[in-house]
Amino acid sequence: MKVGVVGGGAVGLLIASYLSEKHIVTIYTRTEEQSKEINRNGLRLEVDRKVINREVHAEIFPPQHIGQNDLVIIAVKQYQLQTIIPTLINAHTNLLFVQNGMGHVQYFNQLSKNNQIFVGVVEHGALKDHSNSVIHTGKGVIKVASYSENSSLDLSLIQVNELFPVLYEKDYKAMLTNKLVVNAMINPLTAVLEVTNGEVLINESCLTLFEGLFEEVTNILSIENKEEMKEHVKQICKKTAKNRSSMLCDLAEGRMTEVDAILGYLLTVAENEKIAAPIMRTLYLLVKGKEAKV
Amino acid sequence: MKVGVVGGGAVGLLIASYLSEKHIVTIYTRTEEQSKEINRNGLRLEVDRKVINREVHAEIFPPQHIGQNDLVIIAVKQYQLQTIIPTLINAHTNLLFVQNGMGHVQYFNQLSKNNQIFVGVVEHGALKDHSNSVIHTGKGVIKVASYSENSSLDLSLIQVNELFPVLYEKDYKAMLTNKLVVNAMINPLTAVLEVTNGEVLINESCLTLFEGLFEEVTNILSIENKEEMKEHVKQICKKTAKNRSSMLCDLAEGRMTEVDAILGYLLTVAENEKIAAPIMRTLYLLVKGKEAKV
Repeated sequence: MKVGVVGGGAVGLLIASYLSEKHIVTIYTRTEEQSKEINRNGLRLEVDRKVINREVHAEIFPPQHIGQNDLVIIAVKQYQLQTIIPTLINAHTNLLFVQNGMGHVQYFNQLSKNNQIFVGVVEHGALKDHSNSVIHTGKGVIKVASYSENSSLDLSLIQVNELFPVLYEKDYKAMLTNKLVVNAMINPLTAVLEVTNGEVLINESCLTLFEGLFEEVTNILSIENKEEMKEHVKQICKKTAKNRSSMLCDLAEGRMTEVDAILGYLLTVAENEKIAAPIMRTLYLLVKGKEAKV
Repeated sequence: MKVGVVGGGAVGLLIASYLSEKHIVTIYTRTEEQSKEINRNGLRLEVDRKVINREVHAEIFPPQHIGQNDLVIIAVKQYQLQTIIPTLINAHTNLLFVQNGMGHVQYFNQLSKNNQIFVGVVEHGALKDHSNSVIHTGKGVIKVASYSENSSLDLSLIQVNELFPVLYEKDYKAMLTNKLVVNAMINPLTAVLEVTNGEVLINESCLTLFEGLFEEVTNILSIENKEEMKEHVKQICKKTAKNRSSMLCDLAEGRMTEVDAILGYLLTVAENEKIAAPIMRTLYLLVKGKEAKV
């Protein structure tokens, strides 16, 4: 299968590295430097202290013929989508979006005329340590689901080996909602307090905020089984106890965060539905305030 | 005049140093080490890059005869008062409290039977750089007011020179309220966002939080002239633009903050009066969460 990967961040490099074991992968990058580096030296994937080198073709985005791929995986941040969408509208191919949050769903209407749309949720930990090199720091899964009703592509094809499992979900909305709750609960609290995921449950004041924020998040998303969902989030905090959340890392390294795709999206829904979310709004503004510092 | 100063922190050392120019000062410290150091080497005050050395007597608290002083200035943090109060009840002297917030006012009823009570607001910047040494980093004033109705002591006596002016205020409550609003607005926002006082007004998201928090603070304290008060707080942010607030410094150095005396007090009033204060409550919990980390 010919697979295109848009985005040369940690997730894009991770996906491109694994998929190139069995597929012909082209990675589309924002900068020419990164494309050149990948074309010259290939991709470097580090997992379990072993290094795997892969030859992968790279092109600068937007490319001439993105539709020549059987599948294009869009692995940019949600706030970068706006500049990518026009190129994808006439691609006439299968598109898999792996953004956090729900903000990207707004683009699917205009895309689905000419493309089959899939969404995915990446539960791997990955760290980009050079423009052509990624470390697989946390082994997880990619969950995928179809947004388009009559999709013909079998996405299980993208599973290349047992280190990179692909799970197929039936309900795309439930899948994205689940991930959104986890992100909305763990990212802002850890980013503002500058604590690891595990400390969220240990620090008493943070846990009080967690309970209040959870009420707001689940009210906004009309989550029915709240207790089960809360247990799910807490389990993830425990499993990833020593990890620093992506939002905490983004702020620490002076990068833009995904707070708009996560809390920004939820606050828009809250406003439309007239649901109070004062803790969420305060945390949103604090993350934006910290972003603006850097 | 014989003056006792309870507390060997930055404010206690600053007051003791200045007052010893014209008064017989005894400083009461928590640790024996600090008392020994002060008795052995005196106090060192640095101001305008000049160093002034003063001989001051020090004793460990609680002392035998605190009532031998004509005036005792209580310069400990609000959260340390509880252990000090029993010793002061039978002092039969004049007491001047210089804590932040309003939490200390609760003790005045039991103290005023045997003592004349004054309150003060310290608008100096001071940095303790050794157990017997303080740097006067920001020149301001001490405002004082009488809590007891028929006070006979003339507090203008404690002004020793033009570097340490004392202003007498008629309305102790208005004076404390004014300082409380300033502390409630500047301390938590700067501490959670880790910004200087000036950045509060420059950072757009922080300014949005400032406006929301200001509504809550002024509702809780029934402030009548809100616009004037807001201008007052903003002027202080501008005047002290490059300063890091005491709460930010406390967190950075792993010390306990005064958040209970400031936001904790306001939240108790809010709860009693059934006034909503969600931004304040979130900031309170975030500061407590950051305190617990250290």
